Amino acid sequence: MLTRIEHDLIGDKEIPIDAYYGIQTARAKENFDASGVTLSSFTTFITSLAKVKKATALANFELNQLDEKKKNAICQACDEIIDGKLHEEFIVDMIQGGAGTSTNMNANEVIANRALEILGHKKGEYKHLHPNNDVNLSQSTNDVYPTAIKITLYEKIFELVDSMKILENSMAKKAIEFQNVIKMGRTQLQDAVPMTLGQEFNTYAITIDDDIQRLIECQQLIRQMNLGATAIGTGINSHPQYVKIVERKLQEVTNRPFVTAKDLVESTQDTGAFVQISGVLKRVSAKLSKICNDLRLLSSGPRTGFNEINLPAMQPGSSIMPGKVNPVIPEMVNQIAYQVIGTDVTITMASEGGQLQLNVFEPIIAYNLFNSINMLKKGFESLAYKCIDGITANELRCEELVLNSIGLVTALNPYIGYENSTMVAKIALNSNKSVYDVVLEKNLLSKEELDRIIQPQNMIRPIAY
Amino acid sequence: MLTRIEHDLIGDKEIPIDAYYGIQTARAKENFDASGVTLSSFTTFITSLAKVKKATALANFELNQLDEKKKNAICQACDEIIDGKLHEEFIVDMIQGGAGTSTNMNANEVIANRALEILGHKKGEYKHLHPNNDVNLSQSTNDVYPTAIKITLYEKIFELVDSMKILENSMAKKAIEFQNVIKMGRTQLQDAVPMTLGQEFNTYAITIDDDIQRLIECQQLIRQMNLGATAIGTGINSHPQYVKIVERKLQEVTNRPFVTAKDLVESTQDTGAFVQISGVLKRVSAKLSKICNDLRLLSSGPRTGFNEINLPAMQPGSSIMPGKVNPVIPEMVNQIAYQVIGTDVTITMASEGGQLQLNVFEPIIAYNLFNSINMLKKGFESLAYKCIDGITANELRCEELVLNSIGLVTALNPYIGYENSTMVAKIALNSNKSVYDVVLEKNLLSKEELDRIIQPQNMIRPIAY
Amino acid sequence: MLTRIEHDLIGDKEIPIDAYYGIQTARAKENFDASGVTLSSFTTFITSLAKVKKATALANFELNQLDEKKKNAICQACDEIIDGKLHEEFIVDMIQGGAGTSTNMNANEVIANRALEILGHKKGEYKHLHPNNDVNLSQSTNDVYPTAIKITLYEKIFELVDSMKILENSMAKKAIEFQNVIKMGRTQLQDAVPMTLGQEFNTYAITIDDDIQRLIECQQLIRQMNLGATAIGTGINSHPQYVKIVERKLQEVTNRPFVTAKDLVESTQDTGAFVQISGVLKRVSAKLSKICNDLRLLSSGPRTGFNEINLPAMQPGSSIMPGKVNPVIPEMVNQIAYQVIGTDVTITMASEGGQLQLNVFEPIIAYNLFNSINMLKKGFESLAYKCIDGITANELRCEELVLNSIGLVTALNPYIGYENSTMVAKIALNSNKSVYDVVLEKNLLSKEELDRIIQPQNMIRPIAY
Amino acid sequence: MLTRIEHDLIGDKEIPIDAYYGIQTARAKENFDASGVTLSSFTTFITSLAKVKKATALANFELNQLDEKKKNAICQACDEIIDGKLHEEFIVDMIQGGAGTSTNMNANEVIANRALEILGHKKGEYKHLHPNNDVNLSQSTNDVYPTAIKITLYEKIFELVDSMKILENSMAKKAIEFQNVIKMGRTQLQDAVPMTLGQEFNTYAITIDDDIQRLIECQQLIRQMNLGATAIGTGINSHPQYVKIVERKLQEVTNRPFVTAKDLVESTQDTGAFVQISGVLKRVSAKLSKICNDLRLLSSGPRTGFNEINLPAMQPGSSIMPGKVNPVIPEMVNQIAYQVIGTDVTITMASEGGQLQLNVFEPIIAYNLFNSINMLKKGFESLAYKCIDGITANELRCEELVLNSIGLVTALNPYIGYENSTMVAKIALNSNKSVYDVVLEKNLLSKEELDRIIQPQNMIRPIAY
Repeated sequence: MLTRIEHDLIGDKEIPIDAYYGIQTARAKENFDASGVTLSSFTTFITSLAKVKKATALANFELNQLDEKKKNAICQACDEIIDGKLHEEFIVDMIQGGAGTSTNMNANEVIANRALEILGHKKGEYKHLHPNNDVNLSQSTNDVYPTAIKITLYEKIFELVDSMKILENSMAKKAIEFQNVIKMGRTQLQDAVPMTLGQEFNTYAITIDDDIQRLIECQQLIRQMNLGATAIGTGINSHPQYVKIVERKLQEVTNRPFVTAKDLVESTQDTGAFVQISGVLKRVSAKLSKICNDLRLLSSGPRTGFNEINLPAMQPGSSIMPGKVNPVIPEMVNQIAYQVIGTDVTITMASEGGQLQLNVFEPIIAYNLFNSINMLKKGFESLAYKCIDGITANELRCEELVLNSIGLVTALNPYIGYENSTMVAKIALNSNKSVYDVVLEKNLLSKEELDRIIQPQNMIRPIAY
Repeated sequence: MLTRIEHDLIGDKEIPIDAYYGIQTARAKENFDASGVTLSSFTTFITSLAKVKKATALANFELNQLDEKKKNAICQACDEIIDGKLHEEFIVDMIQGGAGTSTNMNANEVIANRALEILGHKKGEYKHLHPNNDVNLSQSTNDVYPTAIKITLYEKIFELVDSMKILENSMAKKAIEFQNVIKMGRTQLQDAVPMTLGQEFNTYAITIDDDIQRLIECQQLIRQMNLGATAIGTGINSHPQYVKIVERKLQEVTNRPFVTAKDLVESTQDTGAFVQISGVLKRVSAKLSKICNDLRLLSSGPRTGFNEINLPAMQPGSSIMPGKVNPVIPEMVNQIAYQVIGTDVTITMASEGGQLQLNVFEPIIAYNLFNSINMLKKGFESLAYKCIDGITANELRCEELVLNSIGLVTALNPYIGYENSTMVAKIALNSNKSVYDVVLEKNLLSKEELDRIIQPQNMIRPIAY
Repeated sequence: MLTRIEHDLIGDKEIPIDAYYGIQTARAKENFDASGVTLSSFTTFITSLAKVKKATALANFELNQLDEKKKNAICQACDEIIDGKLHEEFIVDMIQGGAGTSTNMNANEVIANRALEILGHKKGEYKHLHPNNDVNLSQSTNDVYPTAIKITLYEKIFELVDSMKILENSMAKKAIEFQNVIKMGRTQLQDAVPMTLGQEFNTYAITIDDDIQRLIECQQLIRQMNLGATAIGTGINSHPQYVKIVERKLQEVTNRPFVTAKDLVESTQDTGAFVQISGVLKRVSAKLSKICNDLRLLSSGPRTGFNEINLPAMQPGSSIMPGKVNPVIPEMVNQIAYQVIGTDVTITMASEGGQLQLNVFEPIIAYNLFNSINMLKKGFESLAYKCIDGITANELRCEELVLNSIGLVTALNPYIGYENSTMVAKIALNSNKSVYDVVLEKNLLSKEELDRIIQPQNMIRPIAY
Repeated sequence: MLTRIEHDLIGDKEIPIDAYYGIQTARAKENFDASGVTLSSFTTFITSLAKVKKATALANFELNQLDEKKKNAICQACDEIIDGKLHEEFIVDMIQGGAGTSTNMNANEVIANRALEILGHKKGEYKHLHPNNDVNLSQSTNDVYPTAIKITLYEKIFELVDSMKILENSMAKKAIEFQNVIKMGRTQLQDAVPMTLGQEFNTYAITIDDDIQRLIECQQLIRQMNLGATAIGTGINSHPQYVKIVERKLQEVTNRPFVTAKDLVESTQDTGAFVQISGVLKRVSAKLSKICNDLRLLSSGPRTGFNEINLPAMQPGSSIMPGKVNPVIPEMVNQIAYQVIGTDVTITMASEGGQLQLNVFEPIIAYNLFNSINMLKKGFESLAYKCIDGITANELRCEELVLNSIGLVTALNPYIGYENSTMVAKIALNSNKSVYDVVLEKNLLSKEELDRIIQPQNMIRPIAY
């Protein structure tokens, strides 16, 4: 392998001659190998890094700290990365020590070497354009890295919300399709009172919509950037006007309403927004998992379970039990939810472990937030397309269960009182009779009254009595 | 013990003759003993239950479903409870099966028996006024219980915020007091660049203020109530106008802007807001714990640690090491934070475990949310009053550490470049010299330039160069 | 209130004249108020502290470091505490800063003052017998406190195991009672293949027995004590023979096989055993919760669920739905399990947060371990006595479900192959026919063969074919 | 792409003609895409699956249920996989619904098609040798899948232990190297009493050795296999002798002491062992993280921290601060620990969520256990090779801190009493004097006595006085 020699604080090192990354990236590659997942797996993160680097170059140029030629070369290199090029040069593992320095340097080096090429130099000829002095000018990992994470999250939340709208829409369609299917509601897995299957699916549509709102609110938590903080928030090595200019440049480059945090020292060390977003992803996951649990319950059977709905068959369910079909999509989504919920603990510990002026554990936070969003996105889409859209109702079964139910007795409460109703329920259950028959036997209501009261349509909404 | 006999679905049972609670409370008392913590430990929760019961009585009266005499007696009983009376009659354990039914029935029974007294009857004479038919009229545990939890949380968040403002204020005062104490900032526990101790404490004030905003936002999540949902959200056994009227009554009774949820079936089964609030409490805890970790680091010593600040001595620190003083208040607060973070997992599992039309695990959710807020409140206040307010700075020590630091070299970056600066740092470290001396030895800058650059006041903010 | 004056590093303080505790306890009471749960809530912990103090007094006496009079007085005071006296004097909050120093000093002070009384002195006359110099002689909080925690856990595991045996026994009885009840097994909530209800309950008995073994193994993890470590494990201020002698004394006082850890520096800072015990309690909880989930599923109904078993009715299930009976005991136990699982995170964070020579967060670890064991104990007993013992089977229902099931087709696999069996299952399901009829219609087996194969007793164990 | 047609319960599907996997694998590939991590990433898992398949084929042959030709072909195919071939054919995502059926079928199909080739048939000609009827004979996913997981864990624990021994050894070497470096011990980050740096590193060696023992104990938890359980543990479709024979075959194929579980119904649904192993990995992680925290504290500085030791410089530490070197390896390892701790919650929830006769969430459990072990292994090795082995001590600094310390006063306790010692400490601290000088000034001890007592070698172990 042909190599070039690069040099840093530690000493010399050979770098593959064609590599756009440089010595610090190469060291990081050797130092960190825990997850096996490289930066290049997260496209949006790499483009976000490039956007930050472009915005800072533009700001430095406006402040006359970077000449036009360098500025143009850096910006072109960034634009190429934003267009999807050179991502394979981001080779560092996501789980890294150093608070993201290796990620920042990987970006600095790739951009510097590409810019050198653009300027007609060879890779590694940093005297013409330097990863630290030029590409990282007015910056520190400690402002660049969290800013790039926030931009990434901002964009990925849009993607996640899109997938949630797909599921919401699937649920809403089923709510309409099943609006006349009367069924028993259940509380504590015990027969409660009637409702429609449409109400049940509508609940899922509404609850997902609610979660979408919470995620959109989360985007507000990550609009505040600490560019200009440099090392610890005091702005050392940056120009007094830099912070204002780079705010504007970042808005232009990203076309998003990012603003400068009110206090850069605080913003540089604080990871509260990440913990809260993780907490909201956990909320979303807990609710999504609950929906999957419900789907598995409602489709349990086919002969020995609730059997109110049928999930579409996606694959044979068993290597030994012929004809068995399992709710494999909800089961997968449950597991995604558990994964997101578990890594919320990871993120929380990483946040709590931050010390003094910086949180060194941001890499594991970013890794898990990105992963969680990616997995949830796939979960929402799979659930919509491969499960909900194909669900059918067993209307007759649902109806039978209602007519046979003890829960009808609740509707009699306002007419015969809680204690009489309790007696009816007890007799019906012990004698294996229907509530209907027991009420008539006991002469508690006339047949006409009773028929009116327990009409399904009178039990699924408030009724004047 | 003198007793009266009461009767329910299960059979007869003797109840202490003076007890305001009744048979269902007594059964629940026997059935549930896990935590040993009774409802009566959470005053705000009991008054919130009474507020719900009052609001519903007023609504039922307005709809002519409850006569004036009963309404007045119920309202008077509720008012007494709101005033702090009869709380000792709420004897059920907080961790209960039954989705809160025992809590609701404890309230129904205490209110019914007190109302019976007011009306001149004996306790237990439910034919005159019945816990279910009258006090629980138009209601179910499934709407009353979560509504009371939400009212409680709404009020308790105010209390928590008040305690946080106390700490914020203490931090802000120290920020001013220490605004001229120059010290080294640290990233990754390694010497970074200078800052002031005032900036450090100001960060804590700001970060707490940020958390306050997040908690206030949380209150919006629990403004939506499901009163009128009755059993599963379909409103069975409630009057069609009830839901609108009870919304207004609840606003009047609580003097808070509570509204009816947009979909009562969804609202009855959804516990997402509780998970999210727990997630925000977790965020608050992680950040609070980080502050305590910092305080313990900064005050480490007195002779072998950082020793930049002194925490007030609250108690002798050791049974064996004389004169030892420990950071006991931050240590206590760390542990509070861990407790809140841990029980967030409990709340999440309880939420995820909800099935179909109801979440049966709301009791453990409520128990932990109430507990977490109570403990955090004590933590914020203790930290302010017993720690922060008494902190003093070791100014000389702080100054010495700055002058002696390698980190000064960062300020030279813009003048001599990253690579020269690296060389200076390396030489200084290896030769045990100061950065200042090495720069002069190497003739990298004149003494005048150097003196100007590394003036502390020039290193704690952006400077034009 | 009459008071006496005591003095410490911080200064003077008035102590109630009758109090056995002293100044350091009083300060701790003021400093720590987070949980509201005092040491006195955990009887075994207080007696364990007294046992440690007795063993150390005996060792100090044997080494001629404590005179006989003092030794006797201290031992008598300890014995009284072991007998249940003076527990109300342990007033410090369980969640405390200071790594347990306040707990140790509370014990030292109560014992010293009671010993002073025994010797004919007044409380507070420490010149005759001193909390630190005499009661705490050769000790530090850092060896006394974790030793007392371990003794407590050792004893409490016995209690927990006893409660588990009760449940195991209840399950085993039901396994025999239900050994001939044929029912469908379910995997993924879908009909699988037949089994007996006895096999199902036997599984629970066996799985609990397995957990019992794991807990007994855990006791081995906490047999190693660090008495003699004093402050950090180096044994400063202790006699070279002390560590050996106190090991023997502790064995005599506790009558348990406690030994000295192989390295006292390691043992003093390590909390791994606590984390592992918490992990095993979490395992136990996850499995217990799964059992409760199963019980709730199997008893779901009565008309719209699985309805294979009936749980005993413990209380009316609803304030609105008459006759409803809920699985309240399993629901309570689920919540206990969630609580234990959540606080495992607390314990883990507290362990991880320990620094250098000591883990300062042992108080929150002890608090949660003690609480978890107490709650689980109540959960196991409640589940046995208030639920399992009263369970009845719906035999006819179970049998019907088997005969009607598609899952029978699995038994045909070895005779007609996986693909033919799949076809039969598919036809039966789509045509709403029984597997039996479809096999005969398709002439895949003779009626005789078929009858033999699908005899229930041939499907619940391996059969030669 | 050339294809062949395969058929299953769902219908026909085109399969790439060269693929060894078949239709069920292809469906699973489409259905599950959450993690993007395929089975092929976990080599040991694939070889474990092949070992199970080989053992079962041998057992079936011995029972005359599989002819010799088929047996030989299947065994050869399995041997090839065990030798590392065909792993790229295991294309299903690790996070899958269906309780592992897709994994089992992927194995069944790859083995069947390779065996068909060996027998001279084309891939897909299942009439000659069938994935279900032959390769999966006497088996179900529900016994094969957990068995393969356990074999994998058994082997991976050996690998993990090897990496831990490397770190233990590195620590032990440093313990010897630093055995004469006297330094201050710290409790609660406050100066405590003297010790040696060797004692400190020896602690880490011992604590790791302790964890190794715990992991080896864990292997016992997964020695019990449920082969022969088939679908739910009742052994349906298996020969009565099968369970005994396959136990012996599995021992032969794996050369490990695996045995049959005592109850197959219990064993098929129980995931307690996985939860416990995860709990032990969590324990290991918490302790490993604590070590990393200590290393970062002890090396904090170089000028403003503890600075007792130097970690080897692995890479430049900052993009802005020249010369900064960070503890990047411990930081990486901290994050690995957080990841393992977080996913323990995932595993626990997955275990708790299992229902009735099977835990459908085993895939996420296996995925996280395998991942956690892989990451920890890398963490232990990195920490040893890239950090511990290169640590040097700052002896002079350590010595200065001891001489200057207040903590020396503890050693005076037995001579002048706790209260006098407290006074000395207080005066020394307030007057900025040394303990030594204050004792002499106050005439509490003669110079000779004092010199003897505070000799370092007399303070790091118990001394007769």
